[in-house]
Amino acid sequence: MTRADLTSAMGLNRSTIGALVSELVALGMATEYVPARRDRAGRPSHVVAPRRDGPYVLAVEVAVERIVTAAIGLGGLVHARRVTVIEGVDTLPPNVAARIVEDAGWLADRLPATAYRVGVGVSIPGTVRGRDGFVEHAPNLGWRAVPFAALLAGLFTGRMDVQVGNDADLGAVAEHQRGAGVGFDHVVYVNGSVGVGGGIITDGVQLHGVGGYAGEIGHMTLDPEGPPCHCGSTGCLETYIGEHALLRAAGVTDRHGPDAVAGVFADAERGAPHAVAAVHEVALWLGRSLANLVNVLNPQVIIVGGSLADVLRLDRFTVEGELDRRAMAAARAGVRVLVAGLHEDSALIGAAELAFQALLAAPGALAPAAAAN
Amino acid sequence: MTRADLTSAMGLNRSTIGALVSELVALGMATEYVPARRDRAGRPSHVVAPRRDGPYVLAVEVAVERIVTAAIGLGGLVHARRVTVIEGVDTLPPNVAARIVEDAGWLADRLPATAYRVGVGVSIPGTVRGRDGFVEHAPNLGWRAVPFAALLAGLFTGRMDVQVGNDADLGAVAEHQRGAGVGFDHVVYVNGSVGVGGGIITDGVQLHGVGGYAGEIGHMTLDPEGPPCHCGSTGCLETYIGEHALLRAAGVTDRHGPDAVAGVFADAERGAPHAVAAVHEVALWLGRSLANLVNVLNPQVIIVGGSLADVLRLDRFTVEGELDRRAMAAARAGVRVLVAGLHEDSALIGAAELAFQALLAAPGALAPAAAAN
Repeated sequence: MTRADLTSAMGLNRSTIGALVSELVALGMATEYVPARRDRAGRPSHVVAPRRDGPYVLAVEVAVERIVTAAIGLGGLVHARRVTVIEGVDTLPPNVAARIVEDAGWLADRLPATAYRVGVGVSIPGTVRGRDGFVEHAPNLGWRAVPFAALLAGLFTGRMDVQVGNDADLGAVAEHQRGAGVGFDHVVYVNGSVGVGGGIITDGVQLHGVGGYAGEIGHMTLDPEGPPCHCGSTGCLETYIGEHALLRAAGVTDRHGPDAVAGVFADAERGAPHAVAAVHEVALWLGRSLANLVNVLNPQVIIVGGSLADVLRLDRFTVEGELDRRAMAAARAGVRVLVAGLHEDSALIGAAELAFQALLAAPGALAPAAAAN
Repeated sequence: MTRADLTSAMGLNRSTIGALVSELVALGMATEYVPARRDRAGRPSHVVAPRRDGPYVLAVEVAVERIVTAAIGLGGLVHARRVTVIEGVDTLPPNVAARIVEDAGWLADRLPATAYRVGVGVSIPGTVRGRDGFVEHAPNLGWRAVPFAALLAGLFTGRMDVQVGNDADLGAVAEHQRGAGVGFDHVVYVNGSVGVGGGIITDGVQLHGVGGYAGEIGHMTLDPEGPPCHCGSTGCLETYIGEHALLRAAGVTDRHGPDAVAGVFADAERGAPHAVAAVHEVALWLGRSLANLVNVLNPQVIIVGGSLADVLRLDRFTVEGELDRRAMAAARAGVRVLVAGLHEDSALIGAAELAFQALLAAPGALAPAAAAN
């Protein structure tokens, strides 16, 4: 963005913008250059950009069966990433934390020497107390009452700011700021893989609820007489649209995991009846749950991510049909259903945004001298 | 409140508070008096109070089978009220509007000559576009696409500010400001009579959604194979917990309306098995719907109003049991379920708050000279 654009976007005068930019340049966070002149006459405005070799955060997505780590710079730029498959004892909290620290070192080795880490953001598929990153319950990881932020922070050398959030909440923030939700103020993000979660933006702000637990749409009852859920209830949305339900509906009983799920979608794409029927069944229940969310929240857009994005892509007709049938007309008319713009990276980018919050609030406090690396 | 209390509550100095109070006194909106000295030494602080004989609003609740009108002063004080039973052609929008204007005159005759009306607020059991008070659909009144605010404003002599809102949204605001929700920032209000609606407060602010249609919880699907609903869907919450469902479950087929419903509650209270079973059935579905709302919104309090308040009172055990079973533990632990503090008047008081908004935003613009009466 040019200084001139910054001036008008922020409503400050040129000299104030100049001073602020100089400060960020001195802190090693921003860089300035004069662009090669293109099509306008007059003195060209300086272009201000985040430094690619300056501050970055370690963004982590802990998912079922894998950990994704990435070094992400200001503006959401992914410098380097690593995917580690985990199973069995690898999924225990101390082992996950140790693996994250190991991956952090691996990533740091691939960055310029001037790069410095300003924080860590972790996405967890479960209920998380935002205040202190305490994981209440992550059923698909088998975690309960894990002080994960504290556990992970303790493994880094020096002080390290570690923030932990719910995967769908983080995905919602990322999609709102950098994905399919840009420009919309009322957004519902629905993320589905093995588990199903949601993140809600109303009036441009994330809806956290009193304890930070809002958006647990995977456990919305859609039929009290429905199948038992691991949460102790019956007929939860997750039992109808989670990946296990998709595989079961497709008759796949001997395999699970991302490859098995991708297999069902590939079969559906080439018209295999068992896979088409399974996708249709999931689409039906997805549409029903979205209708409930439209009735309760009246969003502008619903963004669907994870493997549910493929369900939407393959059988949008069914999803939209259930919305037509079950959402109130006025709210229905105002909503669009979109596929996640950040694809598989919504939660990861959201974890990076979370980790960057402290830097954005007080850039000076986290300059190289103050940051442990 | 004393001037001293106002000074500390608003963080302004004594002379500013003095000037503001004088202005409101001059406008005829506030009054000041020196209280009889009680237990403290020193010069007593002036007490400032809204004038009971000054500005008031006409608050209207259009419900199924009745219209409630009231003259309500600043602070929520009900000066006078009237209930009119309506049926058949009386329920057509132009006839409802004419009746409201007639009742407004009846109420005005019962107020001091110094009282002046500053606005009209109307509660409607249906989806309302807040911006211009256009009623999209009020199924239980049989209204569709009615520009009710404009219709009603046109019947008053002179210019009159008419605001129209959804009954549950208005009830939520009233309960939050003056009822069971005072002091809580995350509130869900559930109102049930013939229809079932909801109003949501998050972080102290009402959740409207993009078009103002949020909170339509009566049409949340709780079983896709459930009974048909007038909205065109099946298995909506309203088909399980609306008054018609209660009466049907109690085996009452020859009567309807408030008296019939009160009869079922009276029967349940004295232990009549058919009525106890009917209340239990409604409580079960009420608890299920509240669990969904807890999972999605993570509120501090859920406030239950209308005839559902009686269901809660008579069978709280069942409602709380479904919450225990179906809401996620962390969110469940943080929520309390309360009966509406304003009893039958939540929506009416909310309509008054809505009508007072313009006055509160600019008191000078609506002083007697400017107000048509």
